Amino acid sequence: MDLIGRDLICTQDWSIEELIRVIELAEDMQKHRYSNKYTSLLRFKTFLMFFYNPSVRTRQSFEAAATELGGHAQFLEPKSMRLKTEKSTGETIEDAANVMSRYAVGLGIRILEDKISAYGDGDKLIREYAKYCTIPVINMADDKYHPCQGLADVMGLRKHLGKNLKGKKLLQIWGNGALARSWCSVQESLIINSRFGMDITLAYPDGYELDPEVIEMTKYNCAKNNAKFEIVHNVKEGYNGADVVYSRNWMSPDAYDSGKFNKAKEIEKAMQYTNWICDEEKMRLTNNALFIHPMPVDRGNEVTDDVASGKRSIIYDIAENRLHIQKSVMALTMANLIKS
Amino acid sequence: MDLIGRDLICTQDWSIEELIRVIELAEDMQKHRYSNKYTSLLRFKTFLMFFYNPSVRTRQSFEAAATELGGHAQFLEPKSMRLKTEKSTGETIEDAANVMSRYAVGLGIRILEDKISAYGDGDKLIREYAKYCTIPVINMADDKYHPCQGLADVMGLRKHLGKNLKGKKLLQIWGNGALARSWCSVQESLIINSRFGMDITLAYPDGYELDPEVIEMTKYNCAKNNAKFEIVHNVKEGYNGADVVYSRNWMSPDAYDSGKFNKAKEIEKAMQYTNWICDEEKMRLTNNALFIHPMPVDRGNEVTDDVASGKRSIIYDIAENRLHIQKSVMALTMANLIKS
Amino acid sequence: MDLIGRDLICTQDWSIEELIRVIELAEDMQKHRYSNKYTSLLRFKTFLMFFYNPSVRTRQSFEAAATELGGHAQFLEPKSMRLKTEKSTGETIEDAANVMSRYAVGLGIRILEDKISAYGDGDKLIREYAKYCTIPVINMADDKYHPCQGLADVMGLRKHLGKNLKGKKLLQIWGNGALARSWCSVQESLIINSRFGMDITLAYPDGYELDPEVIEMTKYNCAKNNAKFEIVHNVKEGYNGADVVYSRNWMSPDAYDSGKFNKAKEIEKAMQYTNWICDEEKMRLTNNALFIHPMPVDRGNEVTDDVASGKRSIIYDIAENRLHIQKSVMALTMANLIKS
Repeated sequence: MDLIGRDLICTQDWSIEELIRVIELAEDMQKHRYSNKYTSLLRFKTFLMFFYNPSVRTRQSFEAAATELGGHAQFLEPKSMRLKTEKSTGETIEDAANVMSRYAVGLGIRILEDKISAYGDGDKLIREYAKYCTIPVINMADDKYHPCQGLADVMGLRKHLGKNLKGKKLLQIWGNGALARSWCSVQESLIINSRFGMDITLAYPDGYELDPEVIEMTKYNCAKNNAKFEIVHNVKEGYNGADVVYSRNWMSPDAYDSGKFNKAKEIEKAMQYTNWICDEEKMRLTNNALFIHPMPVDRGNEVTDDVASGKRSIIYDIAENRLHIQKSVMALTMANLIKS
Repeated sequence: MDLIGRDLICTQDWSIEELIRVIELAEDMQKHRYSNKYTSLLRFKTFLMFFYNPSVRTRQSFEAAATELGGHAQFLEPKSMRLKTEKSTGETIEDAANVMSRYAVGLGIRILEDKISAYGDGDKLIREYAKYCTIPVINMADDKYHPCQGLADVMGLRKHLGKNLKGKKLLQIWGNGALARSWCSVQESLIINSRFGMDITLAYPDGYELDPEVIEMTKYNCAKNNAKFEIVHNVKEGYNGADVVYSRNWMSPDAYDSGKFNKAKEIEKAMQYTNWICDEEKMRLTNNALFIHPMPVDRGNEVTDDVASGKRSIIYDIAENRLHIQKSVMALTMANLIKS
Repeated sequence: MDLIGRDLICTQDWSIEELIRVIELAEDMQKHRYSNKYTSLLRFKTFLMFFYNPSVRTRQSFEAAATELGGHAQFLEPKSMRLKTEKSTGETIEDAANVMSRYAVGLGIRILEDKISAYGDGDKLIREYAKYCTIPVINMADDKYHPCQGLADVMGLRKHLGKNLKGKKLLQIWGNGALARSWCSVQESLIINSRFGMDITLAYPDGYELDPEVIEMTKYNCAKNNAKFEIVHNVKEGYNGADVVYSRNWMSPDAYDSGKFNKAKEIEKAMQYTNWICDEEKMRLTNNALFIHPMPVDRGNEVTDDVASGKRSIIYDIAENRLHIQKSVMALTMANLIKS
């Protein structure tokens, strides 16, 4: 299995064997952190990080990942980079991608819904970079997908539930809150956990539908694994028998208003559903479920403090996994790349 | 003496032996800069720097310190990080601190008076991070203290006056100027130099009182060392017999106006005291005193060019010491930390 | 030949032998990229980068250069640094330069026309830093010169035309476009390529004169090499027999309007000359010329896609050369510098 040179934009583009390879290497990297087994893989090499959207955790974990592999990640904000668009003069992605491929061994890009004019444009931009780059392009979260988060989630579930996730039930549930969050982590969770054979219950109030294409992918993955998939609109129903509860706010499909992401409107709408909070009473309906979340957690809205800081919460473990997963992805896709 | 895992928020929290250990190691690190004696201590490890306030010198010296120890310092601006407050939704410090403790071996925080609503809040915030972090937290200057500056000052005085500072007189004097500066460097100087046994004369125009708690600490430290402490309001009096003159502007206690730091008002008030400048005439009253300052120097206001660039000025040596002191603190508190 | 400690502000300050030394080392560094022949030269050492103007490519290539030499480049934006000016209080360059010389082994500065009030002020500021720094100062592009770009251009021409550039004809031609670009890359090209013996044809519409001092230098260099120098104002004339075409927009000498760089006015003026584009028809008049450009390319204005992406375009090679040239300059000027 040779992953050298591969882009990671959506986990659905990779085979299940390839995803397992990433996770298993990440698990070993966690065991042997800072040992010389892995500290030379990116020695003296550069990983470029393009943050169209700012981020604390993604930046910290990617930059630390490069450091721990012996390399260096550059933190770049493309606001200082004028790209050519229909309306304005600037550099083409072809030119930018070709030059970056000469300087670095990999490129990470993060672009979310408030930096684009229509759903899907962020993912398209990353794929445009990947088309012209001769180095791997890693999706550090876009408007559709968040592959490193999804892989970190699975790594956490494998640790706490065992390697075989088939037959385990994931409740992916909308959470109340004022953050009008991206779909990427939630959609990633649906497609990757269904790849690994979990039964999926998706729960949200009417009006919070996700991308139909992602729902179709999830159904397809579940069907292939003989797993269940259902959508419910009742806040309690999905908790019954769940092994994992993932309560997270997301914006509605109406969030894009004539090409502009309307956060204020989204927040007003979301704040009506105050009972859509994950709390101990609902958790008692589950099969002693783990609580997971991609963080930052909106405590008191998406979930109570009791659950988020409770014994079955593995949110910090999963946040840590981001580091190991990203080291693994970088090592597998970039480690032998020597540009001249 | 084991300092692994210790926070450094205020030098008063550390024993005198511990402070001397830091300075002695810094002195040796200066002698053996770039030698392999010290270049592996943070190899492949990450130090996170949170700059609520921007900074050139503190950032340069901390980032270089991590590089010289073989590690990497991430330059982070928390403006992109939404923390939970009474008024707004966001991440709790508990969550942020727990995750950062998984990625890094240490966390530095800088937060000054213009980023908070009341004196003391910056220091409180750092202590809140320290409460939840399992990695050492280093104060990179807050509204109250600046431990790395204080240690750099002492290191400079030991070099130029000898290791025994007992009986030497420090004049800590308010300087004219339009910068309305933080209390942190000055207050740090009072408490650390009194720990090392210096006689302290604090001089300022009426209305420029410092934190009474810091004055009490300084008096306590002086009393323990049988050293003198006095406060004067005459611009010349304190120069008599001084071995060290530290002329530096600071804001008045009225700088916080209904929860807002009012810089314009402060500057207007400060500019009245044009005779509060350290010049050669006043320096002739001293015991051939050294001139020290944490920089940036406001030449022509706090001090004349003649004095700041004169033979007895050790401002560049002290600025350089920041690097060595910070390397020493990082090595002593973080070097064996391996997170898994 | 000892270049340790030397500043590189303008290539005209260096001898031709010194410039060739830089290029030859860069060529070898390209061959042995990431090999341990060169990865220890800046080990554990810091290079400071001051970006008065943002930049993607210059930042990426300098930061990668430091990483590949085993060191670390700090990305600094001096907006957070208050310098003393005639009108405002702040730190003197003397103080800033002295302290930075204690932390780092080199300092790069980028400052372009929109950050200054009169042409030449950017270059002057860099020379002011160089005066007080005890470490080498590298010009990362100022309002007058761009030495690393010029060296990268020559490295590219040597690769594609052979080491002897004497008698080869360079057409340096103004290009249409809405970017009102700095003179630095173009002026650098004139002075460095004339040093290497090329015949120079400079072509632009009336009103786009460059710095007369640079024209004089170029004439002087050409005369010393018995090479031709001419200025034409016809868009096609210069293409005849050219071996290299460098089509690039630049602002007019009127761009500074009462101490302010007036970009809008510049763009309006430039957009009149739509026929000043490098296209295949004009390229057919040449001696199968190479197309070069410092990037970012304004496709459709300065040059057509056909030419920019054509077989004779070496723009990506030259962009890559920036990395190798900068590694070479840093190695030659800083590698043995150990500050204590």
